[in-house]
Amino acid sequence: MKVPVKAEARKQIGVIGAGDCGSEVRALAERVGREIAKRGAVLLCGGLGGVMEAAAYGAKKEGGITLGILPGTLREEANLWIDIAVVSGMGHARNALIAQSSDALIAVNGEYGTLSEIALGLKMGKPVVVLEPGWKIEGVHRVKIRKKP
Amino acid sequence: MKVPVKAEARKQIGVIGAGDCGSEVRALAERVGREIAKRGAVLLCGGLGGVMEAAAYGAKKEGGITLGILPGTLREEANLWIDIAVVSGMGHARNALIAQSSDALIAVNGEYGTLSEIALGLKMGKPVVVLEPGWKIEGVHRVKIRKKP
Amino acid sequence: MKVPVKAEARKQIGVIGAGDCGSEVRALAERVGREIAKRGAVLLCGGLGGVMEAAAYGAKKEGGITLGILPGTLREEANLWIDIAVVSGMGHARNALIAQSSDALIAVNGEYGTLSEIALGLKMGKPVVVLEPGWKIEGVHRVKIRKKP
Amino acid sequence: MKVPVKAEARKQIGVIGAGDCGSEVRALAERVGREIAKRGAVLLCGGLGGVMEAAAYGAKKEGGITLGILPGTLREEANLWIDIAVVSGMGHARNALIAQSSDALIAVNGEYGTLSEIALGLKMGKPVVVLEPGWKIEGVHRVKIRKKP
Repeated sequence: MKVPVKAEARKQIGVIGAGDCGSEVRALAERVGREIAKRGAVLLCGGLGGVMEAAAYGAKKEGGITLGILPGTLREEANLWIDIAVVSGMGHARNALIAQSSDALIAVNGEYGTLSEIALGLKMGKPVVVLEPGWKIEGVHRVKIRKKP
Repeated sequence: MKVPVKAEARKQIGVIGAGDCGSEVRALAERVGREIAKRGAVLLCGGLGGVMEAAAYGAKKEGGITLGILPGTLREEANLWIDIAVVSGMGHARNALIAQSSDALIAVNGEYGTLSEIALGLKMGKPVVVLEPGWKIEGVHRVKIRKKP
Repeated sequence: MKVPVKAEARKQIGVIGAGDCGSEVRALAERVGREIAKRGAVLLCGGLGGVMEAAAYGAKKEGGITLGILPGTLREEANLWIDIAVVSGMGHARNALIAQSSDALIAVNGEYGTLSEIALGLKMGKPVVVLEPGWKIEGVHRVKIRKKP
Repeated sequence: MKVPVKAEARKQIGVIGAGDCGSEVRALAERVGREIAKRGAVLLCGGLGGVMEAAAYGAKKEGGITLGILPGTLREEANLWIDIAVVSGMGHARNALIAQSSDALIAVNGEYGTLSEIALGLKMGKPVVVLEPGWKIEGVHRVKIRKKP
């Protein structure tokens, strides 16, 4: 007998952060990506480098699914660990889509672009987690991550 | 030994058509969705009803992956066969994202919204297939589908 | 006594067409822009060259107001006859904003980009005029312009 | 002799702030709008109520020009002091268009939506002024306004 067809409709967790970052932040983002995948959620990000790349890599290491919402017009701009790419062609305005499409957002470091996503997420009523250090904005959940032993 | 990590980066095929349609068009859209999934591509659509729903259903029947780029602000508006939802909140402007994110577009029937996606796809240089009958626009590949015996 | 303050809230008429065009089409677009300005409406367009530039030029010749909704991220890309520029940075997705912001659309020639705007305008229930020759789409008002003597 | 045709291409100054605010903030926003108009710049805002409305009112009082980039699909949602309306239909993603279309941004109070516009403006390299009190973000110019005597 055929198993009933249905979509997976997993939770979608957005990981936001700078497109360029050092090795420590990168390691942290990778851990975040792994944990998201382990829990069966889709990792959603902006699809580019830095935190986005490390988080996607972490998710793929655990067999997860990754979605990148790119600012440009070329899928080739996605990092190597993006399964599904939305090629928005709408530049920074795509930040609103990242926030709106996420069930929750996790910020790993990041600068003004990340701040805009935090703000949009809060505006939309999404849970927003900021890993310390990082933007201190009223309404986010600040979390301190212990270094791995 | 660990298998090397990498993204799947499957082809993404957009299926476009009316959000409300009769049973014949629905059956056709389902067949299109099934064929896309059989070939290992991701089915991309607008995530709502009608052709979008039937195509997504077809893809899931074959174990495929489905991506819906929704016009509204609620994931709940996605049909039941959407695995991954982009909640764009940008109304008709999301049609450009459907076209830009697809490696090729297949139009099943459809009205003005579909026409806008056909036009945007052609503008972006994407291959656009129109199943007969359907919009007659220079530059598309018109294909006649025989009914199943 | 102070006259009561209020916005002008003029009609906004979108002129759509190719970003590159010959002198005959250019002359026609200029006439359209002039007529829009003479009637006190704002000329809305995509802000770039060709039909958009000629229409804006015509409107300014008659002392009108021009609004350009640009696809890129630089105001400098606007043609010289754009008073007010919306710098959308969202590429082809800005076509939806042109359609949505216009009380009516007038297509002067044009290719796939124009077709997408015609389709979006019709989808949104806007009156769409196509000057002959030009896209033949059910639902538009096709108008034949006599050459000036 | 005919005066040479050209666009006005005035500076465009974005005023951002909450859509709902008290009378003190409203008075401040009105003053900001007046000063923008007095200097010959276009007042750009989100077109709705609160700070956006008060700033537009101030600009019109001084004979200025006002541009509203609305989140919704209806021009009727614009406040009464918007001359030219961009009906974006793209919700919060329109915040990026406000930032990108402004030569500089002035924040009058405001909450998360305003914060997203501040962040996007800084990301795009725009000068961003925040009137005290208001968001304290590195990189903005914080300005204290004395109450009128």
